[in-house]
Amino acid sequence: MASAGKVIKCRAAVAWGPHQPLTIEEIEVAPPKAHEVRVKIIATGICRSDDHFLSGAITEANYPVILGHEAAGIVESVGEGVTNLKPGDKVIPLFVPQCGECRCCKDPKTNLCYKNDIGKYKGTMLDNTNRFTCKGKIIYNFISTSTFTEYTVLDEIAVAKIDDRAPLDKACLIGCGFTTGYGSAVRVAKVEPGSTCAVFGLGGVGLSVVIGCKVAGAAKIIAVDINSDKFAKAKELGATHFVNPKDHKKPIDEVLADMSNGGVDFVFEVIGNTSVMASALKSAFFGSGTSVIVGLAPSSDMLSVDPMLLLTGRTMKGAVFGGFKSKDEVPKLVEDFLANKFELDGLITHKLKLDEINEGFEYLRAGKSIRSVIMMG
Amino acid sequence: MASAGKVIKCRAAVAWGPHQPLTIEEIEVAPPKAHEVRVKIIATGICRSDDHFLSGAITEANYPVILGHEAAGIVESVGEGVTNLKPGDKVIPLFVPQCGECRCCKDPKTNLCYKNDIGKYKGTMLDNTNRFTCKGKIIYNFISTSTFTEYTVLDEIAVAKIDDRAPLDKACLIGCGFTTGYGSAVRVAKVEPGSTCAVFGLGGVGLSVVIGCKVAGAAKIIAVDINSDKFAKAKELGATHFVNPKDHKKPIDEVLADMSNGGVDFVFEVIGNTSVMASALKSAFFGSGTSVIVGLAPSSDMLSVDPMLLLTGRTMKGAVFGGFKSKDEVPKLVEDFLANKFELDGLITHKLKLDEINEGFEYLRAGKSIRSVIMMG
Repeated sequence: MASAGKVIKCRAAVAWGPHQPLTIEEIEVAPPKAHEVRVKIIATGICRSDDHFLSGAITEANYPVILGHEAAGIVESVGEGVTNLKPGDKVIPLFVPQCGECRCCKDPKTNLCYKNDIGKYKGTMLDNTNRFTCKGKIIYNFISTSTFTEYTVLDEIAVAKIDDRAPLDKACLIGCGFTTGYGSAVRVAKVEPGSTCAVFGLGGVGLSVVIGCKVAGAAKIIAVDINSDKFAKAKELGATHFVNPKDHKKPIDEVLADMSNGGVDFVFEVIGNTSVMASALKSAFFGSGTSVIVGLAPSSDMLSVDPMLLLTGRTMKGAVFGGFKSKDEVPKLVEDFLANKFELDGLITHKLKLDEINEGFEYLRAGKSIRSVIMMG
Repeated sequence: MASAGKVIKCRAAVAWGPHQPLTIEEIEVAPPKAHEVRVKIIATGICRSDDHFLSGAITEANYPVILGHEAAGIVESVGEGVTNLKPGDKVIPLFVPQCGECRCCKDPKTNLCYKNDIGKYKGTMLDNTNRFTCKGKIIYNFISTSTFTEYTVLDEIAVAKIDDRAPLDKACLIGCGFTTGYGSAVRVAKVEPGSTCAVFGLGGVGLSVVIGCKVAGAAKIIAVDINSDKFAKAKELGATHFVNPKDHKKPIDEVLADMSNGGVDFVFEVIGNTSVMASALKSAFFGSGTSVIVGLAPSSDMLSVDPMLLLTGRTMKGAVFGGFKSKDEVPKLVEDFLANKFELDGLITHKLKLDEINEGFEYLRAGKSIRSVIMMG
């Protein structure tokens, strides 16, 4: 704990407000207080949710803020009372923390710890203060993480210790995108061996759903996207059939019914479009199909469905972070990755430096990347 | 098989069209063909679904028709090839048949056999012909059953043989209303011991949901209705808390959240109102609550919900006939009833003669009955 107690000066990508590029700034990172951990970020992915703040789709954030929430790093120092983490530990920050004490943490059926900052966007540590400053100003936190910086401070409940062997440039994806998609298949839908699945939307999360369906043993994985260029990668990751709704005159649910003896067993909406969510529900087998909402819809959009679709026996559900208990299960996911249960390489299309972060956002917006990973320092 | 092969003349309540009372007529009931069974109906309940046809809420039926689908009776004769039923057997007609061969019958997660006539309302036997005539006219069947008659003919796959000890005047409720509500709790929602449940709508099916929640070991069963007169019966059957939304200024989901540490575990909509379905979903605990649609909404009504309600971890689902495989599980439900696992007396408020059937419908429409049971000849 050489630097414990000292302020660290380092570089970070600061968002001073929406609708403007991030700027690389020198910031000060205060030492961790009790039950906090200071982490040197090694690699961090750029996720669509980060861009929702820059684009103004989500407006509740406090600015200036350090975005970024899908990362991996190494513990630099720990605050008082931290017993299960030490300097040098490899870790993944958790945008859904796990306090272990709230109703959700005690409920085996959910992972959405009451201490999460999603939707609230208070932008502080649990003690309501902040650790980042820049040019004399407080810089706010982002959903318990803030990873577009060389160093960040995390509440202990928002850190998962992972295996020392983990390659952090890949494992960072387990901090959000991969886990969200993969868990939607294996944990939320509970895809069954031999089943037929359909995945609407083939971005990084959708492709991770494909990986999850494959790992779960699905016999048929139908990849659905209005951009046929995405099918090659989906095929590489396990999709067996490909449908571009633009190639069909019939509604997509009828196309899928023809391919699945009347309806698919498991269907995933990984776009965030309420019309597609309604089509996905229809595509599920009427008697026992499950439709999982993975995509985040614009906040004012309502989902309108015929209740008869549910009354015949369909199920509709959803979950954040693939339904995984973060602190308990992220380490296990890393073990599974190290054991080659799934691969992550196929999801990473760009590796960039911190200086190039705005280019990463441009690739995302232009649909040119699956995942850009920023390699720090 | 004394009368096998002979036409039986008997009395039945015939619906000649919507918006008019049933008339008691002498009808002819042809003998059962191959894989059919002729049954003497002993008792039949009057269900809201029967009234949907008389009121014109469902318009697709073929007239004239013999309605009624919740009944119990005794096999009078069997057609060729029927090996598991014989004259004298006590039986319950099945409005959801179980052919044993279709995708649904082979799927342990659904009971909605492809051979059902719900929604199609073809109104015939499986061979596309009919067995009833009256005044020289064909009288159509109703959803594989037609029980408002002293004798009916059923396809073998739409008949469950039940225990000889079963009192048919009560067991008839297992043919629809009781099983739909009870199964929604124990089978569809899978209510857990110690959980908190809320039931919106305290008609016969809603009260059967209450019974199911109690049998499943729910710790708190919150009965919700805008008519407080219904709370006494709900209490008698197991409800522990009572909420009339009219007594509160807050939205009902907030009232229930206050009573359940943030949201109920299992919630049931047993009215068929899409606004109430949306409130029910909101009332479910955000992280892991399950909302079950039991009520049948008018066919043009759409359910509009914020998809974020699902993305945090809620589940919404539904099923007909409580999700039970009819031919396999109705006999087991009768066993459970005989073993006093649940009671049915509390659901039966009126016993009427066939001549009084229109009075039974009037009680139903006026909200004066839970269940009226017609006792045949």
